[in-house]
Amino acid sequence: MGDLAIGVDLGGTAVKVGLVDVEGRLVSSVQVATEAAAGPDHVINQILDGIQRVTSSPESLSGIGIGAPGSVSLDRTTVTAPPNFPGWGELDLGRTIRQRIDSDLPVTVDNDANVAALGSAYFGAGKSFDSFLMVTLGTGVGGAIIYNRKLFRGTTGGAGEIGHISVDYAGPQAAAGIAGVIEAYLGQRFLSHYAAVQLAERPDSLLCELAKSDPDLLTPLDLCNAARRDDQASIEILARAGRMLGWGLGSAVNLLDIRKVVVGGGVSAAGDFILEPAREALRKAVLPGLSEGLEIVQETLGNQAGMLGAAQLAFDHARSNGMT
Amino acid sequence: MGDLAIGVDLGGTAVKVGLVDVEGRLVSSVQVATEAAAGPDHVINQILDGIQRVTSSPESLSGIGIGAPGSVSLDRTTVTAPPNFPGWGELDLGRTIRQRIDSDLPVTVDNDANVAALGSAYFGAGKSFDSFLMVTLGTGVGGAIIYNRKLFRGTTGGAGEIGHISVDYAGPQAAAGIAGVIEAYLGQRFLSHYAAVQLAERPDSLLCELAKSDPDLLTPLDLCNAARRDDQASIEILARAGRMLGWGLGSAVNLLDIRKVVVGGGVSAAGDFILEPAREALRKAVLPGLSEGLEIVQETLGNQAGMLGAAQLAFDHARSNGMT
Repeated sequence: MGDLAIGVDLGGTAVKVGLVDVEGRLVSSVQVATEAAAGPDHVINQILDGIQRVTSSPESLSGIGIGAPGSVSLDRTTVTAPPNFPGWGELDLGRTIRQRIDSDLPVTVDNDANVAALGSAYFGAGKSFDSFLMVTLGTGVGGAIIYNRKLFRGTTGGAGEIGHISVDYAGPQAAAGIAGVIEAYLGQRFLSHYAAVQLAERPDSLLCELAKSDPDLLTPLDLCNAARRDDQASIEILARAGRMLGWGLGSAVNLLDIRKVVVGGGVSAAGDFILEPAREALRKAVLPGLSEGLEIVQETLGNQAGMLGAAQLAFDHARSNGMT
Repeated sequence: MGDLAIGVDLGGTAVKVGLVDVEGRLVSSVQVATEAAAGPDHVINQILDGIQRVTSSPESLSGIGIGAPGSVSLDRTTVTAPPNFPGWGELDLGRTIRQRIDSDLPVTVDNDANVAALGSAYFGAGKSFDSFLMVTLGTGVGGAIIYNRKLFRGTTGGAGEIGHISVDYAGPQAAAGIAGVIEAYLGQRFLSHYAAVQLAERPDSLLCELAKSDPDLLTPLDLCNAARRDDQASIEILARAGRMLGWGLGSAVNLLDIRKVVVGGGVSAAGDFILEPAREALRKAVLPGLSEGLEIVQETLGNQAGMLGAAQLAFDHARSNGMT
């Protein structure tokens, strides 16, 4: 097995491609625009362009790993309906990339939350845990389960939808139309919308004027910045989001007896404004017999998590095929 | 490995002991009173009495399996704080039984819901599923996870607490004090109490008088019998319980991508009065990408499930120790 692999983080706006060594060091990396609106063929060209720019000799590598949005088949090659990628439907991304590179190099694809969890397990905050729940707070709320240092993938590869645990059967709905799911409270759009409605009524808040005049422009980052300046209304809004996250995680802990949680993704930058209330709610939601060692920690890898995790996908694949 | 094993179903009121063959046939069985109030030593004597009554030569067996209430250690021998067993604390049940029988016969202990799931997976309604969620509706609501034909046990053996998935962060509490958990709607005592309150206000119900005069005597069986006689109020109460079950299971399916559910335990006798509303709620609570092949079925083994599952625990143990 080669000592290097390529990790591709396929996002809605950017494709990040990294050449990574087995220790999780980023040897080199590039970022190209996804330009998803131009359709799948164009996106594939962008991925190939990125790969060529980090290595001129892919033959010497362990393989290529790709973290993609949408659902990924159990054999880790086909991507179905990634949100915000028009025209994709079902696409055998692994095979397509392999053919275009014209090599036998294995290409392994997995869901972006799964890939973030792998990155965390090998190189990030999850490194010290044999089993943990990964939550990614971004546009949506993604998730993954690491159990005994392996991804738990479920019967078709769709496991880990932590964002679609419901905390209130009569609660608000997120994109998929299910009431009271974690994503309906912490997904970027839902959190922003809730905040705009609340803050417009809070003349004491630094964000009141913004919420009134331009509610669509209010972001979780604004809330976070205002909270750091001790804005009580923003602190309360982030705390409510945290409580919902913690409560939903309680159901997951009771079900799985996995007591460690790593939280990553853009919105996790709010840190303890969300995580401390989440910890408090989690303690209340977990059975006494399962509460020892409960922990929610913040991911440390930042925006490299996707590339590193995707490269690890390639290393794992090479290892399980006896190429060690 | 012997062709026979002993399965012990340790319940709050009765100890059921069965001699079981590898095909899951009950060769013989006895039932003795648990008499838990008399303390652990007495209960152990009752178990040994039951074992002696089904076989005079335990040496020829594969082993003994025991399904016990309370939490069971990951090495499957120690039982901690089984509810309604005064004076137990932490007890190495496996070792104690082995010493008292004075033999090398392996004794394997697991949580009663896990054992019911094993019974179902090998001999019951779960036989045709590689992976499924087991729910036992009784005094409490227990649960277990079978994944790829094995028990998923979590990091300490405590996984599967389906009864403690919350469907409402502001809902009613069950024994452990967690708001809105499935057990707070379907646990026998909680369901009975809710029904008594509702039915006292429903002069159209067959159970109105009972609910008014003796609310403590109203049981899920009464509801079930009244529902069969087309009592609308009882039908509505069971349907609400079913909806809560289905909604909570939705969170589990989204998290695990395990789409089959087997429901057993005494209260499951209500059958489709609970299960049909549960199916409907489940469909609404599951992500579109995970909804194909969703199924909730009723366990078929009845009160033999515990003995058969416990015997399977012994067969599994023998097999994993190379005694095949």
